[in-house]
Amino acid sequence: MALTAAPADERRAIGFGLLGYGFMGKAHSNALHKIPYIFWPSAARPELVAIAGRTEAGVREAATRYGYQSYTTDWHDLLADERVDVFDNVGADTAHVEPTLAAIAAGKHVVCEKPLAATAADALRLYQAAETAGVKHLVCFNYRFFPAVRLAWELVHNGELGTLRQARFRYSQEWRTDVEAALPSPTGALDIIGSHAIDLARFLCGEITSVSAAISSIAPERTYRGEPAETDDTVAIVAELEDGLVATIDASLVAQGRRNHLAWELNGSNGALTWNLEEPNVLRVHRRDAGRTRGFAEVIACEEDHPLAAPWWPTGHVLGWEHGHINMLAHFCDAVANDTAIDPYGATFLDGLRVAQVSEAVEESAATGSRVAVAEIPVSPA
Amino acid sequence: MALTAAPADERRAIGFGLLGYGFMGKAHSNALHKIPYIFWPSAARPELVAIAGRTEAGVREAATRYGYQSYTTDWHDLLADERVDVFDNVGADTAHVEPTLAAIAAGKHVVCEKPLAATAADALRLYQAAETAGVKHLVCFNYRFFPAVRLAWELVHNGELGTLRQARFRYSQEWRTDVEAALPSPTGALDIIGSHAIDLARFLCGEITSVSAAISSIAPERTYRGEPAETDDTVAIVAELEDGLVATIDASLVAQGRRNHLAWELNGSNGALTWNLEEPNVLRVHRRDAGRTRGFAEVIACEEDHPLAAPWWPTGHVLGWEHGHINMLAHFCDAVANDTAIDPYGATFLDGLRVAQVSEAVEESAATGSRVAVAEIPVSPA
Amino acid sequence: MALTAAPADERRAIGFGLLGYGFMGKAHSNALHKIPYIFWPSAARPELVAIAGRTEAGVREAATRYGYQSYTTDWHDLLADERVDVFDNVGADTAHVEPTLAAIAAGKHVVCEKPLAATAADALRLYQAAETAGVKHLVCFNYRFFPAVRLAWELVHNGELGTLRQARFRYSQEWRTDVEAALPSPTGALDIIGSHAIDLARFLCGEITSVSAAISSIAPERTYRGEPAETDDTVAIVAELEDGLVATIDASLVAQGRRNHLAWELNGSNGALTWNLEEPNVLRVHRRDAGRTRGFAEVIACEEDHPLAAPWWPTGHVLGWEHGHINMLAHFCDAVANDTAIDPYGATFLDGLRVAQVSEAVEESAATGSRVAVAEIPVSPA
Amino acid sequence: MALTAAPADERRAIGFGLLGYGFMGKAHSNALHKIPYIFWPSAARPELVAIAGRTEAGVREAATRYGYQSYTTDWHDLLADERVDVFDNVGADTAHVEPTLAAIAAGKHVVCEKPLAATAADALRLYQAAETAGVKHLVCFNYRFFPAVRLAWELVHNGELGTLRQARFRYSQEWRTDVEAALPSPTGALDIIGSHAIDLARFLCGEITSVSAAISSIAPERTYRGEPAETDDTVAIVAELEDGLVATIDASLVAQGRRNHLAWELNGSNGALTWNLEEPNVLRVHRRDAGRTRGFAEVIACEEDHPLAAPWWPTGHVLGWEHGHINMLAHFCDAVANDTAIDPYGATFLDGLRVAQVSEAVEESAATGSRVAVAEIPVSPA
Repeated sequence: MALTAAPADERRAIGFGLLGYGFMGKAHSNALHKIPYIFWPSAARPELVAIAGRTEAGVREAATRYGYQSYTTDWHDLLADERVDVFDNVGADTAHVEPTLAAIAAGKHVVCEKPLAATAADALRLYQAAETAGVKHLVCFNYRFFPAVRLAWELVHNGELGTLRQARFRYSQEWRTDVEAALPSPTGALDIIGSHAIDLARFLCGEITSVSAAISSIAPERTYRGEPAETDDTVAIVAELEDGLVATIDASLVAQGRRNHLAWELNGSNGALTWNLEEPNVLRVHRRDAGRTRGFAEVIACEEDHPLAAPWWPTGHVLGWEHGHINMLAHFCDAVANDTAIDPYGATFLDGLRVAQVSEAVEESAATGSRVAVAEIPVSPA
Repeated sequence: MALTAAPADERRAIGFGLLGYGFMGKAHSNALHKIPYIFWPSAARPELVAIAGRTEAGVREAATRYGYQSYTTDWHDLLADERVDVFDNVGADTAHVEPTLAAIAAGKHVVCEKPLAATAADALRLYQAAETAGVKHLVCFNYRFFPAVRLAWELVHNGELGTLRQARFRYSQEWRTDVEAALPSPTGALDIIGSHAIDLARFLCGEITSVSAAISSIAPERTYRGEPAETDDTVAIVAELEDGLVATIDASLVAQGRRNHLAWELNGSNGALTWNLEEPNVLRVHRRDAGRTRGFAEVIACEEDHPLAAPWWPTGHVLGWEHGHINMLAHFCDAVANDTAIDPYGATFLDGLRVAQVSEAVEESAATGSRVAVAEIPVSPA
Repeated sequence: MALTAAPADERRAIGFGLLGYGFMGKAHSNALHKIPYIFWPSAARPELVAIAGRTEAGVREAATRYGYQSYTTDWHDLLADERVDVFDNVGADTAHVEPTLAAIAAGKHVVCEKPLAATAADALRLYQAAETAGVKHLVCFNYRFFPAVRLAWELVHNGELGTLRQARFRYSQEWRTDVEAALPSPTGALDIIGSHAIDLARFLCGEITSVSAAISSIAPERTYRGEPAETDDTVAIVAELEDGLVATIDASLVAQGRRNHLAWELNGSNGALTWNLEEPNVLRVHRRDAGRTRGFAEVIACEEDHPLAAPWWPTGHVLGWEHGHINMLAHFCDAVANDTAIDPYGATFLDGLRVAQVSEAVEESAATGSRVAVAEIPVSPA
Repeated sequence: MALTAAPADERRAIGFGLLGYGFMGKAHSNALHKIPYIFWPSAARPELVAIAGRTEAGVREAATRYGYQSYTTDWHDLLADERVDVFDNVGADTAHVEPTLAAIAAGKHVVCEKPLAATAADALRLYQAAETAGVKHLVCFNYRFFPAVRLAWELVHNGELGTLRQARFRYSQEWRTDVEAALPSPTGALDIIGSHAIDLARFLCGEITSVSAAISSIAPERTYRGEPAETDDTVAIVAELEDGLVATIDASLVAQGRRNHLAWELNGSNGALTWNLEEPNVLRVHRRDAGRTRGFAEVIACEEDHPLAAPWWPTGHVLGWEHGHINMLAHFCDAVANDTAIDPYGATFLDGLRVAQVSEAVEESAATGSRVAVAEIPVSPA
């Protein structure tokens, strides 16, 4: 035979308009490229419609590099375009609220990088707007979408650990270790990485009801682009959760030696789990009933019977950091295509709101020295 | 030649009178047996003079088993005997104060298992009495005497980590995991194992100035021998130390999966360290200046140039749990023989007092929900 | 502004024609998709021109799924198309020789999955044909292209380990553990995974000069699709290398407990390295001169100053299995675009030939019980 | 009451006469001190009767240090003394044969450090003499007596791994890494540490039937005290065992980075085990039937239900290197007291002979380049 033209991909296209083209823009664009051929067959496929950013030269180059059909320096253009089904906001933290609210108003489904908003009040507005509009909403707590983390969630929710009795979460990085250097970001350890630790605590263990916290800075006088900034470099939290569970949660940007160490341990009445992001495929599982060969088993969560692993590679051909984002956005596309729920696997704007509420309680506790109750969960407006 | 009688050991004998013959009695007796031939040559050697305990059959058997010259059911007999230079109190926690005070009054050097006393007030009495009497005093915080822990101390105090910026300490065990079982001890996680974590935090990082804490129990109604008891199963602490360092400290007797997991991590401006008791010979050391092959190095602290290792076995022939007690009591014998200081390597009654003061602050914080300042360090009466 | 069409990607297109659409077809197609936006800027970009396979329904679906412009069931069509610059052969092991020779004859650059050929004689034909034609040739020894492996190569070749004195290589999987099951492949442990271990031994340590080997099978009577097959399940080799270095090399498809455990250790006069594929980002590095904190440092080879890592994600955002293939094919595209060398980083057909020669020596040694010298390296025909 | 004299220890005394007072003399003396109080109650206790050594000042000091009743520079004196029940030979490797034969002739039970003899012929003489005399005989393969190793033995012999399919053993040290230095010992890697690896291979997997080996030296011209010596620094072996099992065994004294790394892995049809001496308490256990949380479990073999652990400390209070020797000599004392068997747990002179036979086959294979069958097991003369 001769070469034959390949049939067109007839799956429904879900048009993405992306705001932002930095580190997270790269991670999301990568995901949109990979989803169509990794998740096959499927109901829909993402389409890279347009990308927006503040600097024209930069966003134009990004459009070519990542294969977007078009670009703009004005994010409103994304909302005006009918081909855009999803507004994916990976812009600066300060650009999360207004554009996302506008997208909801324009009827777009919305994806927003964490933290959802700088204040719980703004996060609540976003949550209520999205619920009222009936659009799908997702906050990018990507670590929920690692196979080993999802496997942990299943073990906990299947009751295989029994009653949880202790938990610890940490996220440690080291890049803000220079006292002299100006800050590379306007936010600090709590927002940048602590938010991930708080979300995983809630995802795996349930709601946080109160916190006692301390915050420290190695150089409180540092500024970000000449402006005052949040200079918290470490935050340490004792959290009380539903059912009396006590957890420690901490985050640091000055934990020398730790490059990207998001780690947790859960101890239940019948078993225990540990995980860390520097070995993201490994879930360590202890079962109380394993007799005299009991101990933490090093489970490489890349087998066919592991959640989120089957679409990828054969047994033991491990995944990396980027795969959390890919699995997350694939889940979002499925939810849009099939009108299914984002939660409990994906973090919705309610989860983004809850993290904001916990964060505010942490800051108040650190400032006052008192244990602070986390605000009530709002009733859904829908 | 024919067999010749071995020359007598002419080192000065330091007579030990031991109160208690359970788990800790075994550990201390073992140490007293090993010190003479492991630490050779040396100025003195311990001698097992007498052992005391409440049950005659038990203490008599222990005397034969461990090679004490004599035994008694009345600890006052130990104090009355001139051959006893050291009163080594490994009795029940409730028998720490009165006998030790009496031993000090009798002019004996004193060793006491942790916790030194149930209250800071009692610990203060012990500290002041020992200082006033001018006797050597040691609290058995044995983990200070593992080679890897001492090496860590040296690295910190030599400034090789730079300024400490974050620290975490935990001690997790799992043996109190049954909700139905009566308590095997009258004290809980804070006293039994939390005290070790607090002592190591002070040893490695400096004084704790304030704490915010939460305490939980899996079954508060449990009793010990029919009496009310301290039922704390987990304790979680955010501690502030001198110079603004924030640390997390926690202890648990219900951490399913963790048999004897005393672990810590220190992050400084120039390096970091981690250690845990289940691999007691390994100190993990990160140095910021190690170029592109930097990472945590797994140092097996059993070489000739490692502290506390040289008297033992060749390179890489690792030590176990018992060796902490042996090194600790050898240090105490040296201090008695040469009239040298117990601190900073060994924990004195001042250290026992400080742990009691921190523990009281922890309990108050857990009860009130407020950050609590640790009491002032008393002025030495001497 | 309004949405503006993205400028076209003006980099030179390097047209790929792929033979095969199974596991390796997926891995290569994924690489071709990712290279354009990960490696940016660059001289060229791959283009997915056409895909060939035996089963029409399968190859047609693959064309759509992976985004090839066209498809065929006859690989000759790929060679006839001018847009195809590179013939990428990921077909069945038995389809490596004839199509690749034809592609060379057609003037295509050639990529071929390992093993290059079933016999050293065929591998030699391929090597000589490619050299004579002056086309670029690559055998897919993808593990050379993991950052941690490349970093190891650099450390060895910079002399940072001193003189190599001992080495060990293993590749252990467990999927052929059922004695009753028919074989899922016509080849055995030596070809399927042993070839990777042999290539890495050569890559990191130099040429193998002789081998002593044993081969075992858990059930020699098994067949593949009813035909006799290579039933070797384990192979164990003592290899002598240049300069007197002795290495052990082994491979197993029945190593219960090991999912995908390619691992090696090198011990030199001044340092040592270890690595394994189940933690692919970690290189453990020991330096003899590190004083009393020497030990294997756990280097997470995902930092900007690590080879092959910079195009990807920030520090500590780890890579997975697929990234070896991506980095490898990016290197090949660079070599085509810039007419630069495939070696020493990439494996050429000469490397494929050498692995075939070693494999034949291994089989002979296992059969005869004698140490067997590996055949001479042929002189390049070019 | 007043102090009461402790009752005498009425257990039967087993008199030990020790030849040698270096590293191994220290390890054995330490064991003899600890056995009486650790193994309680018991049928007998060792008594340190006399110690012999070549240098009078040295052996006299050792007698005092280790608490032997008497000393001599002539080992014949040990044999002439009626109080000596056991001749424990930890002298130089060259002093193993004649004194041990004389001890057997004198009716003593015999303990001998490894290697039992420099030749299989001498080892056979020792084995036959001891069997004919009907005395207990033990070769000090101490690693059999670590709890984790014994637990492994039990799992293998209970069939919990199914059929063994692959095994690997290594013993790597680094102290002979200087090319310029004179040799500190007259023997090389095979005898000094390879013997331990060979013994463990036999202990855990069964008899070795043939070997293919290579031996290398980093500087063959080195001498020991001016005399020619065995300069093998590395030895690598492919071994075939009963039932077709293939194993790799290697030993090295120049494995930079490895202080005392005796390690092994067993892969069976239903499970797998790994262990290494630098973490001696940890047995990693994989079970094929563990469902989707299967993986190597890190078992800390220090619990009450673990073999050899119960006499020691509570759960998770780990043991060190010395405890292998202590457990081994306690087993020997039990065997003497109760007239029970040394094997299969302890290594008899037959095991010492088998290691010598394997070692000779290894040397022959390395020299000739051919696979060499290990000599037949001799029929017991008894």
